[in-house]
Amino acid sequence: MSESSATPTGVHTADGVSISSAPFPNSRKLYVVGSDPSVRVPLREIRQAATIEDGSQKANPPVTVYDTSGAYTDPEVEVDLSKGLPLIRLNWILERGDVEASPGVQTSNATERKRLRARPGCRATQMHYARRGVVTPEMEFVAIRENMQLTETVTPEFVRDEVARGRAIIPANINHPELEPMIIGRNFLVKINANLGNSAVSSSIEQEVAKMVWAVRWGADTVMDLSTGESIHETREAIVRNAPVPIGTVPIYQALEKVGGNPEDLTWETYRDTLVEQAEQGVDYFTIHAGVLLRFIPMTVERLAGIVSRGGAIMARWCLAHHKENFLYTHWDDICEIMAAYDIAFSIGDGLRGGCVADGNDEAQFAELEVQGELTRRAWEHDVQVMNEGPGHVPIHRIKENVDKQLEWCAEAPFYTLGPIPTDIAAGYDHIASSIGAAMIAWYGAAMLCYVTPKEHLGLPDMDAVKEGVIAHKIAAHAADLAKGHPGAQVRDNAMAKARFEFRWEDQFSLAFDPDKARALFDGQIRTEGETGAHFCSMCGPKFCAMELGRHVRAEIREKGMAERAEAFRAQGGRIYRRNT
Amino acid sequence: MSESSATPTGVHTADGVSISSAPFPNSRKLYVVGSDPSVRVPLREIRQAATIEDGSQKANPPVTVYDTSGAYTDPEVEVDLSKGLPLIRLNWILERGDVEASPGVQTSNATERKRLRARPGCRATQMHYARRGVVTPEMEFVAIRENMQLTETVTPEFVRDEVARGRAIIPANINHPELEPMIIGRNFLVKINANLGNSAVSSSIEQEVAKMVWAVRWGADTVMDLSTGESIHETREAIVRNAPVPIGTVPIYQALEKVGGNPEDLTWETYRDTLVEQAEQGVDYFTIHAGVLLRFIPMTVERLAGIVSRGGAIMARWCLAHHKENFLYTHWDDICEIMAAYDIAFSIGDGLRGGCVADGNDEAQFAELEVQGELTRRAWEHDVQVMNEGPGHVPIHRIKENVDKQLEWCAEAPFYTLGPIPTDIAAGYDHIASSIGAAMIAWYGAAMLCYVTPKEHLGLPDMDAVKEGVIAHKIAAHAADLAKGHPGAQVRDNAMAKARFEFRWEDQFSLAFDPDKARALFDGQIRTEGETGAHFCSMCGPKFCAMELGRHVRAEIREKGMAERAEAFRAQGGRIYRRNT
Repeated sequence: MSESSATPTGVHTADGVSISSAPFPNSRKLYVVGSDPSVRVPLREIRQAATIEDGSQKANPPVTVYDTSGAYTDPEVEVDLSKGLPLIRLNWILERGDVEASPGVQTSNATERKRLRARPGCRATQMHYARRGVVTPEMEFVAIRENMQLTETVTPEFVRDEVARGRAIIPANINHPELEPMIIGRNFLVKINANLGNSAVSSSIEQEVAKMVWAVRWGADTVMDLSTGESIHETREAIVRNAPVPIGTVPIYQALEKVGGNPEDLTWETYRDTLVEQAEQGVDYFTIHAGVLLRFIPMTVERLAGIVSRGGAIMARWCLAHHKENFLYTHWDDICEIMAAYDIAFSIGDGLRGGCVADGNDEAQFAELEVQGELTRRAWEHDVQVMNEGPGHVPIHRIKENVDKQLEWCAEAPFYTLGPIPTDIAAGYDHIASSIGAAMIAWYGAAMLCYVTPKEHLGLPDMDAVKEGVIAHKIAAHAADLAKGHPGAQVRDNAMAKARFEFRWEDQFSLAFDPDKARALFDGQIRTEGETGAHFCSMCGPKFCAMELGRHVRAEIREKGMAERAEAFRAQGGRIYRRNT
Repeated sequence: MSESSATPTGVHTADGVSISSAPFPNSRKLYVVGSDPSVRVPLREIRQAATIEDGSQKANPPVTVYDTSGAYTDPEVEVDLSKGLPLIRLNWILERGDVEASPGVQTSNATERKRLRARPGCRATQMHYARRGVVTPEMEFVAIRENMQLTETVTPEFVRDEVARGRAIIPANINHPELEPMIIGRNFLVKINANLGNSAVSSSIEQEVAKMVWAVRWGADTVMDLSTGESIHETREAIVRNAPVPIGTVPIYQALEKVGGNPEDLTWETYRDTLVEQAEQGVDYFTIHAGVLLRFIPMTVERLAGIVSRGGAIMARWCLAHHKENFLYTHWDDICEIMAAYDIAFSIGDGLRGGCVADGNDEAQFAELEVQGELTRRAWEHDVQVMNEGPGHVPIHRIKENVDKQLEWCAEAPFYTLGPIPTDIAAGYDHIASSIGAAMIAWYGAAMLCYVTPKEHLGLPDMDAVKEGVIAHKIAAHAADLAKGHPGAQVRDNAMAKARFEFRWEDQFSLAFDPDKARALFDGQIRTEGETGAHFCSMCGPKFCAMELGRHVRAEIREKGMAERAEAFRAQGGRIYRRNT
């Protein structure tokens, strides 16, 4: 492991939008180096204070945690947002020898940077290599990353096998060399996605980049740029160049901008060119609503909330206007060839998911899910990585059915769900409603959770909403990891429990998802480092602190050998304790 | 139904702590009158704007919702916090002819008010009457209250039967005539409790009353006063006199204050006097940790977090110090007689619940749960109503086991759980973590959820934290009601879905749990009443609004008779759509 010093640094965008990039308190950035020095896997190490008992100190080991925040929390890296992050993957990509410089797509915003695509006849995908038995540096990277907490169960070979069989994906466009690879699959840690992006009526490029950096700071594993307004190309370029995580998009949004906003005017050619344009920018996964078939649209007509997916609604309008089958469906193989040439993963959209609990799990939704399964298998024939998008709005007793059907119909491809939100009346708190459904569906088997923010149904997320949404879904994802028994997931929880029992307040803050908020809400007084800290807080006061009382109980039992005495007591007093059954 | 006018009023406590008591936006307070004019069941009616389609207006019916907020949101009632709420139950209690004036307990703070207790030989409990086949006004009240949304399945007779068999409780001390009765049981709406109370180091009486009013405004069904500091009697008196909801306490806290804070000095006599003192003040349920048996204490010694229940830790220390069995257990029948004399419900404490996910569902926790079952049956022999407290800290895959065991061991007595919190590292966001566990356990069968606020593990809740905690758990409770298929639970959600689809923004705010926050987070512009409002918001802008696109899709299908055409299309085009299976 190499170590960075702990001096905070600041990064600012050109127009003065500031981005918090200080390391987390009592934490340092470490890199675990793989079989090649270029494989440097970031992690965050949280220091703990010693336990003080009977006047002597007993050290507590540092806790290492998964770190999505990229170079922004590494004091040794000076990030210049106008230049982008270091190209850590570039040699890995070039050394595979399957890419060439692309002649490029004509856009009004072409940059000088050289764009790559697969050489003719090559499939530059992780799935392609996985199926040929090759462990790529990306696979080794994610194996180390998933494994950092104690265990050795996730080997590079295991990663390769999961990718080969389509049960996990490593979204990693060959034009996104800045990426720190990560994996999405239900045998790995549950991941979360944060949506951002401007619309016609709000936000700037700098704000969206700032939101992306903010989202990964708090734990977003991927980010979707859902911009629909002005400067859609430039916004995306700025985000991808500065993103240590995979970036996803919904290309139909830009295609629709290109035709002036009228869904009827969309054509396959416009869409195809948009795919290539975004592919060459480095987008790592595309949401494509190819399962919205003409015959399914009438199934939505009696719904309370109709079609609530933007992409789904756009394609439904196109299908109806032309009375033709969805061109994303009819051109699926053409799309697969583009995906294979850049290693872009499919996120097959669920354009017909219900938009309220009453519409959840209906005929239209499941009709589309079956087609998602068909499209998944066809993509795999092209060695293209696939995940499937899921709902949405589902009451909690019907959540599991979504996972069961998706696993069966989509052959265990990773399931990527939006929540689901289990009630419609939580406006302003939909991040909480969503985290309920998200924790459950992740426990049942969903691999990635799309966050929902407090502004869902009300507006676009600002910085506060991004953070609230990310943390709510980190909680959901982590609760699912614990429930699934992911190796190592409980290390941090156990450290927190021990820190609580020992009144190590600073350590409690450091170990929390959000040290800043935990500290801000704390009522008590923290003594300076080196002292033991308050043995109670304002919650209970000194006499009623359960933790303090409990410590005494434990000490007494240990002192007096109470375990044995109680045993004897039980033997004598059988009558007193007999239950009335 | 009688109707109040909609003029907001304000209520302020003596020292200037202000309490928001305005009616909710677009809402009015209604009362449904029962078989006797004195049975006036409050509800909140939410008005909706009309749907405007093709230039014509179509009215949307008002939505009536359960209302815990008491007279504070009734503009016709001028609440004077120094005098307390109207005594709506007093005649019901007196007319049963089973009570007499109590000679009173000597306390330093005795008020002039006459306190009641059961006449010798009488059991003044709802369970007693239920078992004799008597439908009390309280039972009729809760039947109407649970039923207000559409259905007639919850009859007074059904309520009586559930109370008689112990599957539901109506906590309603005969000395709390201000109470608007409510019911806790898994065949009724899921309820939530809000904790408040001062400690030795913070808060005032006025602040605690303000928190109580604030908690019921946002939906708290019961409130527990967990005060441990100065003025414990006066704080409780002020809360009970002004509480439209049942008040719970943990009497051991006050007993411990009386003996100077040393658990070893606790005696049965001090505790008994404390029970009677609080009984005569009108506390509706007592948490009593009688299941913390001496022989179970050693089971906690190897835990990560020891004993985290204050009451549990106090009793454990007493048991160890005296090496005697818990006096709450040995005096259970004496306690039952006090409970029966005032109709106080038991909330049998879970003093040995785990305090972190690693300790969840362990031997100590379940050993105590079995004893809770024994104590439940013994209380029922005295016609005393009972619920059982549950955890706490449990990973989500082990939540259901708690409900299964509780239902079996405690003979279906209502289960009242604290969360559970399914991860330990959410400090600052424990209300979110808790709402995940709470929604699940309520779906599995828990009847009431104790809230957790963002300040859990960090400090005592302030007003903001109270509101956050209440709303997070309202979401959890409501999500469970939907999942359990409670009749009428979905009416409000469906109204919200329809309002969303029709861009009735004002109605969306009114129908949300928190209209204020929904409005504050809204990015768009609302037109004045009478107009239709924006048909998009800043989330998607005008071209990308899925709802708007979806409306067009529906209109097109209906216009063109697309359902039939698609059917024909499907018949012709079978080959195109055939799945690859």
